[in-house]
Amino acid sequence: MDTMGAMHRLKLFIPGPTEVAQEVLEAMARPPIGHRTPEAKELILTVSGQVREMLRTRQTVLLSTSSATGLMEAAIRNLVRRKVLCTSCGAFGKRWYEIALANGKEAELVHFPEGKPVDPEVIDRKLAQGGFEAVTFVHNETSTGVISPLEAMAEVVRHHPDVLLLVDAVTSMGAVPIAFDELGLDVCLASVQKALALPPGFAICVVSDRALERAAKVDARGYYFDFLEMARRAAEGQTPITPSLPHLFGLRVQLQRILTEGMEARYQRHLRMARLVQDWARQRLALFGEESSLSPTVTAVDTMGRFPPRELIQYARQHGFLVASGYGPLKDRTFRIAHMGELQEADLKELLQCLESFLSSRS
Amino acid sequence: MDTMGAMHRLKLFIPGPTEVAQEVLEAMARPPIGHRTPEAKELILTVSGQVREMLRTRQTVLLSTSSATGLMEAAIRNLVRRKVLCTSCGAFGKRWYEIALANGKEAELVHFPEGKPVDPEVIDRKLAQGGFEAVTFVHNETSTGVISPLEAMAEVVRHHPDVLLLVDAVTSMGAVPIAFDELGLDVCLASVQKALALPPGFAICVVSDRALERAAKVDARGYYFDFLEMARRAAEGQTPITPSLPHLFGLRVQLQRILTEGMEARYQRHLRMARLVQDWARQRLALFGEESSLSPTVTAVDTMGRFPPRELIQYARQHGFLVASGYGPLKDRTFRIAHMGELQEADLKELLQCLESFLSSRS
Repeated sequence: MDTMGAMHRLKLFIPGPTEVAQEVLEAMARPPIGHRTPEAKELILTVSGQVREMLRTRQTVLLSTSSATGLMEAAIRNLVRRKVLCTSCGAFGKRWYEIALANGKEAELVHFPEGKPVDPEVIDRKLAQGGFEAVTFVHNETSTGVISPLEAMAEVVRHHPDVLLLVDAVTSMGAVPIAFDELGLDVCLASVQKALALPPGFAICVVSDRALERAAKVDARGYYFDFLEMARRAAEGQTPITPSLPHLFGLRVQLQRILTEGMEARYQRHLRMARLVQDWARQRLALFGEESSLSPTVTAVDTMGRFPPRELIQYARQHGFLVASGYGPLKDRTFRIAHMGELQEADLKELLQCLESFLSSRS
Repeated sequence: MDTMGAMHRLKLFIPGPTEVAQEVLEAMARPPIGHRTPEAKELILTVSGQVREMLRTRQTVLLSTSSATGLMEAAIRNLVRRKVLCTSCGAFGKRWYEIALANGKEAELVHFPEGKPVDPEVIDRKLAQGGFEAVTFVHNETSTGVISPLEAMAEVVRHHPDVLLLVDAVTSMGAVPIAFDELGLDVCLASVQKALALPPGFAICVVSDRALERAAKVDARGYYFDFLEMARRAAEGQTPITPSLPHLFGLRVQLQRILTEGMEARYQRHLRMARLVQDWARQRLALFGEESSLSPTVTAVDTMGRFPPRELIQYARQHGFLVASGYGPLKDRTFRIAHMGELQEADLKELLQCLESFLSSRS
């Protein structure tokens, strides 16, 4: 394998941004159109319909010119008057807790150890204490490579009829099945630069009718992320503010590509890519996450103290691959390989061959 | 002039989105890079430096994945604890007032009649009553085609040392001189799809050191638009969340194009385009805005009740040009022509020739 010069673009195996299809990049380079024209309306309605099909819902799709973090904050400001329960098994679970506090809400954090998933039974008992208007849940924890049980969580929250279930699906949407209506979710959000494989700068979410009813009773929802205004405009094929047209152009093409691949085929492809990486990691080093909860989209590899992760990352970079460091306190112990979006098994095999030479060079 | 089919793209003479240079569109189609890499850091620092040069400031540049409305809300949440004075001479002046209320702040609105500019002397007397932490000001009111006197306003606000001056420069930045440091502004924000001539989906602002000091004393600033966190990361060449890389790629190219044209040359070009349109409107119909305050970037034309504006707009559309309807209550009386960004005098002449044939066809 040749060492690639710094001028060559690195192939992305980080958990976002991910690789983007050339066809999508070209669609994004289309000159802008008037955002209040019939053409823009058709664009917005088409993209919303595609999102509905992907997430199996008939409820409201909101298209947001922001990252997913903006929509996490939106969900808190729009749907929580007083108090929210935040579940967590890593950095992104904690983020929702920090967001609630930064918005002057009461929040309680139930944190599970890094590497383990959220346990719905524990949450069930916590909710039974009462007083919570909503519960936040990260479907796939990107920082540890762990997926938490969405179906079981939805089942549990349904036993508490006044509690809304807010789901961060940032690194699962488009790669892992999510049946929004069937599960009775209230918010399901993601940014587009992960398994949806667009460049960053946009986020989407589905909001349930009962969440919108709740929002109508909440004061000081803010302006930019006001769910009621966003929903009102969405029904007209509009957004309250001028949206990122390049991302809408790109989404229309990319969501069509996703639906053409077929959701089931796409889920299976992600599982196959995940197994490739997991098998390699198990054999050569170790997996950081608990075996029963390994993520289909990102794997955190435990280096077992055999080398500093940054040396492997640097080696991969010199060979044209960008893999991710461990997140926060896991930086010195893990590195992460994303296997989502446009990537194929062949791409992962190529990467693993490179990492294999790194390991050989050290033995 | 041939009638263009619906399949042809309309040339944009609306006050955003505006025409974008092909070179900029191509830069935006670059595949994504890792947003925590040295390459991304260099990109962010370069763009920030270009904004500083354009706005003649040494203070903090914030790059926001949102429309300008998001940054308007950010300015309110970060810089106003209790009460803000909102000045207005049209729809966008009022927007800042609505944003303040939607965020649970006290706000007082001083509204000048549509067509007239904000009068700094009136604001001076209002501020003298005390109790205001900040004053909001729309430099160029897009809904009426009127520019308000920024220099005089800055002079007035300086007499009230505890009051911050928050400037919406959405349709003036890059087209009208703004010397941020010299004027002692505290916030100056814009989205990129107006005179800066990028596709929509991104916004930029400059924040003064004293505004950042003020923010440190404000609770519940929120998360996505927290100025302190944005400023802390900006100093490192980062953004707190994954930014819209396509817009950053585009901005680097476009801001270089703007600086290469030369700010003074650019200001003069906008004045020449404005005069072309104003002269035509004065001669054939009437100007909506007060003569002394006509906007260099957008002209509202008063149809004098001679025809419904939508007929002219429809005619222009059939000939390949998109002009804007009047805003809100001015819809039945005015239409608007934007003359900003990439447009040249020749483009305006072409448009006016088309509008001229419309008028002839009716006489």
